[in-house]
Amino acid sequence: MNSSSTLDRSFLALSHPVRRTIIERLAQGPATVGEATAGIGVSKPAVTKHLKLLEEAGAITRTVEGRTHRLRLETAPLEEASAWVDHWRRLWQRKFAEIERYLAGNDD
Amino acid sequence: MNSSSTLDRSFLALSHPVRRTIIERLAQGPATVGEATAGIGVSKPAVTKHLKLLEEAGAITRTVEGRTHRLRLETAPLEEASAWVDHWRRLWQRKFAEIERYLAGNDD
Repeated sequence: MNSSSTLDRSFLALSHPVRRTIIERLAQGPATVGEATAGIGVSKPAVTKHLKLLEEAGAITRTVEGRTHRLRLETAPLEEASAWVDHWRRLWQRKFAEIERYLAGNDD
Repeated sequence: MNSSSTLDRSFLALSHPVRRTIIERLAQGPATVGEATAGIGVSKPAVTKHLKLLEEAGAITRTVEGRTHRLRLETAPLEEASAWVDHWRRLWQRKFAEIERYLAGNDD
């Protein structure tokens, strides 16, 4: 169930627009905290909480160089979350296609 | 930002193992509440809360037939969540491939 809690944290990390914006920016490459959160329109304490949650999910890591905090996207937890959705999406798409074929057959 | 809050609710819905188990079962086809939650090992009030959150996310719908509550997976919100992750995954995979090519070039 260890992997469950990784997935829990990954999906939770993705469940807020501020955190998704930070992920979108870091998907372009590493950035300072200032760059990753510029113009996001939330308070510094709120930014700190969102970054903490992303770090706890393992979705970002932080390197401190003097006074500069540099953030980097760690994609493994997000890839795992993506794989979970893809796996089940393929299944339900197959099931729904079966149902449609069944209904189409009954219409003949 | 309407779509933001849909994504918020979809990812939140996915952030708990009980809710993911219910989604996994409903991906196989519609089921009663009893079937969808059998052996999950949480209390009835907890099941009720998880189902409510899934319904609020639009990920499941409930049909009441007498005393039977039948649940059905609604895939649109989950497809949207999946599309978000896929979009950004493709981007960071491309960026990381660029970085690797750059580093490989510098090693020559």
